[in-house]
Amino acid sequence: MDQVPRFVLEEKIPPELMIDEKEAQIHRLDSLSLLLYMCLLALTVLTIWCFKHRRIRYVHETGLAVIYGLVIGAVIRYAITSEDVTSMRVKPAHRSDLTNGTRYGPPDFLLLSVQDIPSKRARQKLLNRTLAYSFKGEVKDISRVNEVDQKTTFDPEIFLNVILPPIIFHAGYSMKRRFFFRNIGSILVFAFVGTTISTFVVGGIVYGVTQIFPHLAHTFSLLDALHFGAMISATDPVTVLAIFNDLHVDVNLYALVFGESVLNDAVAIVMSRTLEDYEENLKTGQAMTTSIVLLKSVGEFLGIFFASFLVGGIMGCLTAVLTKFTHIRQFPELESTLFVIMSYSSFLLAEVLNLTGIVAVLFCGICQAHYTYNNLSNESRTITKEFFNLLNFMAENFIFSYIGVSMFTFPKHHFDAPFICGSFVAILVGRALNIYPLAFLLNLGRQTKITMNIQHMMVLSGLRGAIAFSLAIRNTLTEARQLILTTTLIIVIITVIVCGGSTMSVLTRLGIPLGVNDDENMPLGSPQAHQYNNVEEGDNPLDRSHMGSHPNAPGSRPKKSILAKVWGGFDSKFMKPLLTHSNPTLMETLPMCCLPLARLLTSVEQLSRHPAMQISDDDRASASGAEFSRQNSSDEQAETHPPTVISNPALAKSAAKVRAQPLPSSHI
Amino acid sequence: MDQVPRFVLEEKIPPELMIDEKEAQIHRLDSLSLLLYMCLLALTVLTIWCFKHRRIRYVHETGLAVIYGLVIGAVIRYAITSEDVTSMRVKPAHRSDLTNGTRYGPPDFLLLSVQDIPSKRARQKLLNRTLAYSFKGEVKDISRVNEVDQKTTFDPEIFLNVILPPIIFHAGYSMKRRFFFRNIGSILVFAFVGTTISTFVVGGIVYGVTQIFPHLAHTFSLLDALHFGAMISATDPVTVLAIFNDLHVDVNLYALVFGESVLNDAVAIVMSRTLEDYEENLKTGQAMTTSIVLLKSVGEFLGIFFASFLVGGIMGCLTAVLTKFTHIRQFPELESTLFVIMSYSSFLLAEVLNLTGIVAVLFCGICQAHYTYNNLSNESRTITKEFFNLLNFMAENFIFSYIGVSMFTFPKHHFDAPFICGSFVAILVGRALNIYPLAFLLNLGRQTKITMNIQHMMVLSGLRGAIAFSLAIRNTLTEARQLILTTTLIIVIITVIVCGGSTMSVLTRLGIPLGVNDDENMPLGSPQAHQYNNVEEGDNPLDRSHMGSHPNAPGSRPKKSILAKVWGGFDSKFMKPLLTHSNPTLMETLPMCCLPLARLLTSVEQLSRHPAMQISDDDRASASGAEFSRQNSSDEQAETHPPTVISNPALAKSAAKVRAQPLPSSHI
Repeated sequence: MDQVPRFVLEEKIPPELMIDEKEAQIHRLDSLSLLLYMCLLALTVLTIWCFKHRRIRYVHETGLAVIYGLVIGAVIRYAITSEDVTSMRVKPAHRSDLTNGTRYGPPDFLLLSVQDIPSKRARQKLLNRTLAYSFKGEVKDISRVNEVDQKTTFDPEIFLNVILPPIIFHAGYSMKRRFFFRNIGSILVFAFVGTTISTFVVGGIVYGVTQIFPHLAHTFSLLDALHFGAMISATDPVTVLAIFNDLHVDVNLYALVFGESVLNDAVAIVMSRTLEDYEENLKTGQAMTTSIVLLKSVGEFLGIFFASFLVGGIMGCLTAVLTKFTHIRQFPELESTLFVIMSYSSFLLAEVLNLTGIVAVLFCGICQAHYTYNNLSNESRTITKEFFNLLNFMAENFIFSYIGVSMFTFPKHHFDAPFICGSFVAILVGRALNIYPLAFLLNLGRQTKITMNIQHMMVLSGLRGAIAFSLAIRNTLTEARQLILTTTLIIVIITVIVCGGSTMSVLTRLGIPLGVNDDENMPLGSPQAHQYNNVEEGDNPLDRSHMGSHPNAPGSRPKKSILAKVWGGFDSKFMKPLLTHSNPTLMETLPMCCLPLARLLTSVEQLSRHPAMQISDDDRASASGAEFSRQNSSDEQAETHPPTVISNPALAKSAAKVRAQPLPSSHI
Repeated sequence: MDQVPRFVLEEKIPPELMIDEKEAQIHRLDSLSLLLYMCLLALTVLTIWCFKHRRIRYVHETGLAVIYGLVIGAVIRYAITSEDVTSMRVKPAHRSDLTNGTRYGPPDFLLLSVQDIPSKRARQKLLNRTLAYSFKGEVKDISRVNEVDQKTTFDPEIFLNVILPPIIFHAGYSMKRRFFFRNIGSILVFAFVGTTISTFVVGGIVYGVTQIFPHLAHTFSLLDALHFGAMISATDPVTVLAIFNDLHVDVNLYALVFGESVLNDAVAIVMSRTLEDYEENLKTGQAMTTSIVLLKSVGEFLGIFFASFLVGGIMGCLTAVLTKFTHIRQFPELESTLFVIMSYSSFLLAEVLNLTGIVAVLFCGICQAHYTYNNLSNESRTITKEFFNLLNFMAENFIFSYIGVSMFTFPKHHFDAPFICGSFVAILVGRALNIYPLAFLLNLGRQTKITMNIQHMMVLSGLRGAIAFSLAIRNTLTEARQLILTTTLIIVIITVIVCGGSTMSVLTRLGIPLGVNDDENMPLGSPQAHQYNNVEEGDNPLDRSHMGSHPNAPGSRPKKSILAKVWGGFDSKFMKPLLTHSNPTLMETLPMCCLPLARLLTSVEQLSRHPAMQISDDDRASASGAEFSRQNSSDEQAETHPPTVISNPALAKSAAKVRAQPLPSSHI
């Protein structure tokens, strides 16, 4: 019994209160560090306002957040001394626990029995308590941990599971889909081929650097280098896009930079995960040859990517179906709650299925914007838009503040000048070898060429940000990973501040068209057009009402890529009629044999909106009490499908039915 | 070295992967349980919609959430078998760690060294790793823990620190302040005196019950009983209020029930905390007599309550000042972010200062609605309102789903029929002894009497909900506390379902006036008036524009309590002129000697809005580009301050200045 820990009675505090006190202390420290970040955010918001008010465009809010974070981090590091975290080395209490407890890996909980030193007061009963400790992970170096660091260092998984999802969903939900889909071919090439090129080029160069310097050679493996290549290939040009939006830059440039950055996040996340699994496969599968493991990894990459894509797409379409076939839009509050819940569920579902939640949530966001948005009531449109806007703004600024703070407070930094310089060269070369050759190849097939100046601007837009950081901070167990985190932090801070600050002058020097009215933005003359500087401003899905005109050459037909045409046809023939209230209906686009099914999947609103349906306004108003807004039938379709004359006899029949029976039972 | 745990190599998994696998598994289970709650929420939303669609009012959404939660909880309990949580008993590794590690209470971390069993393959190096385990709390009975329970049981502190704050803030922010302030005296009496009465009556009766049954006598102390009395005194009539709102019930009844429930949450939370501290004081302060400890506790109660009140109020006023003296409202996004950040900071600040965050956030919400709201741009008003609306809806339904689920999955339930029956009697008696005598006393001084029927309805509105549950689940270490949690769960479920379901019929049977147009609601004729069923519907701060007319007897002056008059005078003379853009300005209300200060604290908008300031529309439009909406000058003031003729010569001077220099430097 000698080895049972005993509380030393200091300051007359009874030992059982020490336990409560410890819990309360942990809670207060948590609150304190959150309060710190809240103050940072408030400060950032006020400064941004000042800058916007005075029309200073050289520093973006994320840049500001990083700078404030750096200052506060330095203060925490050098000005605040704190008591140390207490820790105790333990060993199993009973020999029988040895195998039992570790049969399935590390135990979930450790149980420590404690006693107080027998008191002189006879009445106080001997304390004999068991404390529970839950599994945290592996530690390498416990000597450098101190309490403030501990507290300003959140669980790294928080970034991937709490902070990133709203940012990524917002990117999908607020996307300028028309230009995205018009450039879909080029964007996919840049995202998939480009990110792969970048990963291997950066990985290769960095591995070369580590081989030159002997002190790095033994800590850094080729896999570590590739891992670094993958995570640093996720670009995050939020600063640049904000300026693009502000200046109404050439729409194709915007679409390419935005589309590439959104998709390459997904690619980089899946790729870095595949590399981890590859590492595991190498260790476990002794029977397999390396080439089989490699092939397996490529398969895994594609599998995870498309399965996650599917999960997100299905959840998005499910929301569209739910909002189309119920009249939940009469209650905008319920509708928007359902919307938020379904969107978050897509993330959770993918994680449960061992896929990548971030990829799922991105495609869910795109589907929600493309289909569900059309079914929502006006109130829900505003609510969901503003809700995710606000979340995105806070999450983004939090993560950049955190990047600044952790530059000073992260306890395991590992600075290495040659490696950092090598990495900067590597990401520059990687970016160049990604953009220029691919743009050249793409230009062979594109009608609207990607000019050299646009290519230069794309290279400059390769900022690194939230995703690279979130991936790097996940795993800091080995020395190589600590080196990677430190270098990533420096790259993020420098690219955000330098590239963000220089975008304006580079744009004008390259002579890229500015002030382009892309018709998806608010009218340029409106007083609010210059108010927000954010990515999503103007990118308002509400403003998609006049899509017919072409941005570059008014009056001419837009130039679409082949992929865009194929997808557009399928989308407007089958997906939109199924998932939204738009015309033509499935009754026209499906073969005749599927007519009963098609009728079931066509809503009353859809029929009543058909150009050939001459339901008078009074009829419609009395139909169900909800206001059916007509303007949200997307014009993307009007482009490909000019008002059809009804050639389908079944449609005419249904029309009669609709009048007689305004609310068929299938549409509750 | 015999006592170093070794991983048993099963299924050829290398031991270092077991650690990763464990982390991944924990993450997947977390996601799964969250996904489960998301599905529950989605189901609840769809069912509510169905019910609303069919105009079924007997089941409120919170009731539904509880019912679905019960079903899912039963499924988890009986249908899902899961592998057990692994745990290991440990003891300190070195004798020197004994005192060192426990000098300041339990250590923060335990460190466990593990090894794998030496492999036959020579090349594999011996694994020698250290795993960190972080402090969780005390365990009583580890034999009944199983994995699913573990995963569907969140950290209890999440309720008080994450889920409750938005609910409570929303209550403050969406309050019908006019009727609240008009009945402020009665509400304060019910909240403070009433909750105290209820606490001691319930505590006394329950203690009596436990003394009758010998099996309870030794587990239940008087303090436990009082603790139960305090936590169960927090009423949560969300169901009842929703119906009140729906049926436009008598405004005084609404104000009394709503105001009492909001404030008694705060009182109950602080009281249960004071009781905890009292217990500690009894143990530590042997030198003090019981009566001194008691006095100290009363002082502590008042201290914590008013300090928290102050923190919330100050943060709210600070936000008002920030939004008044900067032009941040030109950027609604920044403005609403600042609003959210400041509101959450009030919670964190109070927690850091060892006060009660929930109380702070409540009063912060009231201040934000009363002052800041007037300064916000129209966009920010909508955004903040919708944002907190959505958060509140989700948080509320989550907590009620959780209540249902944990009825089955909470591992430490302790059912005891006599105790449960005793508790029901106790809360009924406690509620009756709270309402009837106080209403009698209050009626002696009130002009609008609280009729017997209203008193009956108030007794019926004593549902228990989220707060009682959150307080009960915080501490389930002793048998008495487990008994309390189980009983609280049953009380919450039964009162929510029964009282919620019977409200409609009781209302009509008691003949309480329905369909009262309280002028704060949307016009009754509007098509949207019946759309939402939520508490906050109509309680829309946007609709405070026509407050002048009196709800009960149109044309007559409203009857205010004395306290309301005193506060109203102070508020409209000093607080509103300082914190909002409303008139009269401080230049009129402060004594002449403070004129320079008063001028500094008066905004251009305030001056330009003054009835005597004849700035033409053109002048104003060119002033700063922002649209200054006139209608948000609260009419509460218009009531007490009919348009004043300028008697102040300084004001006339300032007017001239304002014209010459539209943007003085003090108002950036």
